[in-house]
Amino acid sequence: MTHYLNNDTICAISTPQGTGGIAVVRVSGSESLQAVARRWKGADLTDMPTHTAHLGKITFADGQILDEVVLTVYRAPHSFTGEDVVEISCHGSVWIQQQLINTLIDAGCRLAMPGEFTRRAFANGHMDLSQAEAVADLIASHSAASHRVAMNQMRGRFSGELQQLRDQLLRFVSLIELELDFSEEDVTFADRGELTTLATEIHSVVNRLAQSFHAGNAIKNGVPVAIVGATNAGKSSLLNALLGDERALVSDIHGTTRDVIEDTITIEGTLFRFIDTAGIRQSDDTIEQMGIERSYTKMEQAQIVLWVVDNTAPVDTNQHYALLIESHCQGKQLIAVFNKADVAAAPKLTLPDGVRTISISAHKEADVDRLRQLIVQVAALPTVDDNAVIVTNARHYQALMRADEAIGRVIDGLRQGLSGDLLSQDIRECLHHLGTITGQITTDAVLGEIFAHFCVGK
Amino acid sequence: MTHYLNNDTICAISTPQGTGGIAVVRVSGSESLQAVARRWKGADLTDMPTHTAHLGKITFADGQILDEVVLTVYRAPHSFTGEDVVEISCHGSVWIQQQLINTLIDAGCRLAMPGEFTRRAFANGHMDLSQAEAVADLIASHSAASHRVAMNQMRGRFSGELQQLRDQLLRFVSLIELELDFSEEDVTFADRGELTTLATEIHSVVNRLAQSFHAGNAIKNGVPVAIVGATNAGKSSLLNALLGDERALVSDIHGTTRDVIEDTITIEGTLFRFIDTAGIRQSDDTIEQMGIERSYTKMEQAQIVLWVVDNTAPVDTNQHYALLIESHCQGKQLIAVFNKADVAAAPKLTLPDGVRTISISAHKEADVDRLRQLIVQVAALPTVDDNAVIVTNARHYQALMRADEAIGRVIDGLRQGLSGDLLSQDIRECLHHLGTITGQITTDAVLGEIFAHFCVGK
Repeated sequence: MTHYLNNDTICAISTPQGTGGIAVVRVSGSESLQAVARRWKGADLTDMPTHTAHLGKITFADGQILDEVVLTVYRAPHSFTGEDVVEISCHGSVWIQQQLINTLIDAGCRLAMPGEFTRRAFANGHMDLSQAEAVADLIASHSAASHRVAMNQMRGRFSGELQQLRDQLLRFVSLIELELDFSEEDVTFADRGELTTLATEIHSVVNRLAQSFHAGNAIKNGVPVAIVGATNAGKSSLLNALLGDERALVSDIHGTTRDVIEDTITIEGTLFRFIDTAGIRQSDDTIEQMGIERSYTKMEQAQIVLWVVDNTAPVDTNQHYALLIESHCQGKQLIAVFNKADVAAAPKLTLPDGVRTISISAHKEADVDRLRQLIVQVAALPTVDDNAVIVTNARHYQALMRADEAIGRVIDGLRQGLSGDLLSQDIRECLHHLGTITGQITTDAVLGEIFAHFCVGK
Repeated sequence: MTHYLNNDTICAISTPQGTGGIAVVRVSGSESLQAVARRWKGADLTDMPTHTAHLGKITFADGQILDEVVLTVYRAPHSFTGEDVVEISCHGSVWIQQQLINTLIDAGCRLAMPGEFTRRAFANGHMDLSQAEAVADLIASHSAASHRVAMNQMRGRFSGELQQLRDQLLRFVSLIELELDFSEEDVTFADRGELTTLATEIHSVVNRLAQSFHAGNAIKNGVPVAIVGATNAGKSSLLNALLGDERALVSDIHGTTRDVIEDTITIEGTLFRFIDTAGIRQSDDTIEQMGIERSYTKMEQAQIVLWVVDNTAPVDTNQHYALLIESHCQGKQLIAVFNKADVAAAPKLTLPDGVRTISISAHKEADVDRLRQLIVQVAALPTVDDNAVIVTNARHYQALMRADEAIGRVIDGLRQGLSGDLLSQDIRECLHHLGTITGQITTDAVLGEIFAHFCVGK
């Protein structure tokens, strides 16, 4: 368990690792102005109004100049963390960044833990827990949809919806618990009809939110797609064709390394994650058994299966594949991609039920575009607009499921005319689970786990 | 040749590539406030005082929210470039950074060329050319010495020294050229004695600066060190021991990739660059000829040669090495490192003239420290304080050499009593070369070459 000291002053490099034009070091804590002032040559830090930028110099402990920087002051509570914050924009050499951190530590700061700035923002009531988690999701987002879901969550739409339900439930449970104080008198403060209406509404909202997790998870982590078929059917050239444009775009603008986008494609703002099934191979008209099992296991993870049919292969071989794939793609969205349409016509095959078909040449831009459209259509993810609340976090999903069970028991209890003390217990449990999402109820262990996944400097 | 349009508005990601807590996009140009305003929800941009930071939202063209950001305004001429500048601090996902650049381009900005912000700072007279070059050197610096040399250059010490000489020379050449207008009258406005004193002073300063390039180049690119010796002598464990601490330090603080620091060590603020000479091997008591020649060629590049002696090897073998090394290390600083001192005593060898010796065990921390001290001592680089002016740039070195030749001809000419028009020609040539360093005299081709080596966003 990471130990957090909430009253000391922390510092960290907040910009990405490596060399750039500039880098930003963030300092937060009640002593942040004083600590930076010990290494600052320029206007008086303690006189600076909040949200102002100042050109000056950062020095080493011995007074020698480390760098010319621009320093921006944010005074508590008008800062990201809610504490006094100083952001130092220095020249972006790795050496300068390191020395700047070293000299700040020497001046009384401590290197921040991962996510510690955001944790302080949470601790100081600047955001609730689900909003803090959305900050990490936002930074990790790499598609329009995952970005928008995280943005909505960060802006508090999810929290707001939960908070409203929780407030109403709290009012009811207070009334019920008041009844318990007067139990000898058999009074009813909480209208059971109204409570039933509210519980049913909560059940429906919580259920809707929990159901959104399936789509939310696909949005956040990518819709899993398997490309299967014989090696010479054009699987890898199809994948390259699908990846082609985006790769060029990404590296043009930003020089992102291939690793990051390897096997994922964003099509019309939705992330697709391609699962490597390089195992299926054909030799002497029989399928090698070795690779097959592995490929089938991987196909299990897929939501969509692209079966690449080699139009130039013998009909029997393709039909053999059709049978194998049918038996392993139950419950999956299956697309039969008849490839090499420019060389040979699609073979006449008996296809699995419900399969969609498309005829393409992997090197024809227009054909690949049509396939992209089909994949998006088959994925059938909900459109995420500026108001959509979609659950993408497994922790939230579990809490919602538990809250749903509890509120289900409340509804049953009301129907059976259960006594107030029993109802109260289930309502309290529902409140507890909803509270863990936004962080009204939490433990150090849960917080430690959540913020450990942040990057340092955020 | 890159074409620069100096009146349009440019934008670029200024922080290092990749994902981080935050990233900074910089926008500069006369229309920068208007362009950003088209994608901004928050306080009125045109009302913002210079050097103020504002929380708000950046939108897509359709008004949907892209990110919550902090935007800082710097109004012309009080900015890095001298133009109106907006810096946008966004969440550090690669996707958000890309979208932010895309939406700004769509709002009327152009993606900046490498170094274009600094080039505009130069064009607007905010820094001279050698200061602009120092910005790039500063960002590339990875030792205390190279950092300080770049910092001094950026702060204008080098420029100041050259400017002073140039101003005095300009005054003299004007007087001499005035004489030419009155040539029939045979008057002398420029005191030849004073001119001789000045020319001699310039010769001495220019010569000192040019001479500093040898050290400057070593400071900037690292002192080249070759480690030679038999494979089993402990060469690689010695290199690892030398690298050990720093590697840990660098990756602890910053997670820098190994590639960046591969084979370079900063010892007491000086960068050392290790040259791979893995070629020297011993088999059956004779040295394999294949690798040797390659190693000798590489040893040529070294300023310091660490010859690792295996104390446990036969004396004859070590003596054989001694002869080989002596014949290939003329004019180099040679250190004989007697390794494995914990296992065997140093063999008694006839050593090359001038060699320094040290006895160590590569895995003993204290021994490795002693070796580090010896390497620094042997490198004998000048101490760089806050006032030192050291030339590290090959372009400056060449210009200084040419200025030196020209001023040499002026001194000779004065001694020989040459006429004013001939003196004037050489003085003008000297002025020209000094002017190319600070950029009073320059061409688009030279500028293009210089700024092409900058990163985008600076």
